[in-house]
Amino acid sequence: MRALLLTLITVFVMILSLQNVSAQQQTGQVVHIAKLEIDPAQLDSYTAALKEHIQTAIKVEPGVLTLHAVADKSNPAHITVFEIYADTAAYKAHLQSPHFKKYKTGTKDMVKSLELIDVTPIELAAKEKL
Amino acid sequence: MRALLLTLITVFVMILSLQNVSAQQQTGQVVHIAKLEIDPAQLDSYTAALKEHIQTAIKVEPGVLTLHAVADKSNPAHITVFEIYADTAAYKAHLQSPHFKKYKTGTKDMVKSLELIDVTPIELAAKEKL
Repeated sequence: MRALLLTLITVFVMILSLQNVSAQQQTGQVVHIAKLEIDPAQLDSYTAALKEHIQTAIKVEPGVLTLHAVADKSNPAHITVFEIYADTAAYKAHLQSPHFKKYKTGTKDMVKSLELIDVTPIELAAKEKL
Repeated sequence: MRALLLTLITVFVMILSLQNVSAQQQTGQVVHIAKLEIDPAQLDSYTAALKEHIQTAIKVEPGVLTLHAVADKSNPAHITVFEIYADTAAYKAHLQSPHFKKYKTGTKDMVKSLELIDVTPIELAAKEKL
């Protein structure tokens, strides 16, 4: 009983400290725009893999703050992902995550080109709920 | 002892539920990517006007959900704005708002080119707080 209590307190303190860290690192945010050209014949498979990857990353990685993926209306095979990470460490951790590696390996033959643009935030503003 | 344990478990579950994310695919949302080329000599004035405009729009317009403005690191005069509106009516109302008109008129001689790309959401996912 005492061991369980101690474990719970430890996990509780860890969660609180993780929340403080993410609140303090706003100035160091890493922002990218990824522009991808997908093989039109594999577009449905690609978007399914991308959706799954984004949902997992946002859910399980505290440092992955935003992943907005969209397709051009005039050319649905042209995809843009707007990405915000808490800091460089969060971005590096994301690249090493099992879900990112699964997505990257699983889609490598669907992606005809990928351009990653490093950008500097001017103003990042959103309602709390989309 | 048991009461303390129950309290800790309750708080623990509450914290976990607070960490939920907003990843809704609302079908009526209007999403644009604006790509602007700014006169480098007027870049500071332009970014000041853009920041003020974004802060006002997010604060006062319920249908303006996200405005993320960034500058290319390799060319700070190349600016991208990722825009999410609740629906077409919200976007139309935004174009008629006094702050948008002020921004548009005030910056018209600073903007060398503007390309507005209509996009379809694939997955829009963000932590509730940036």
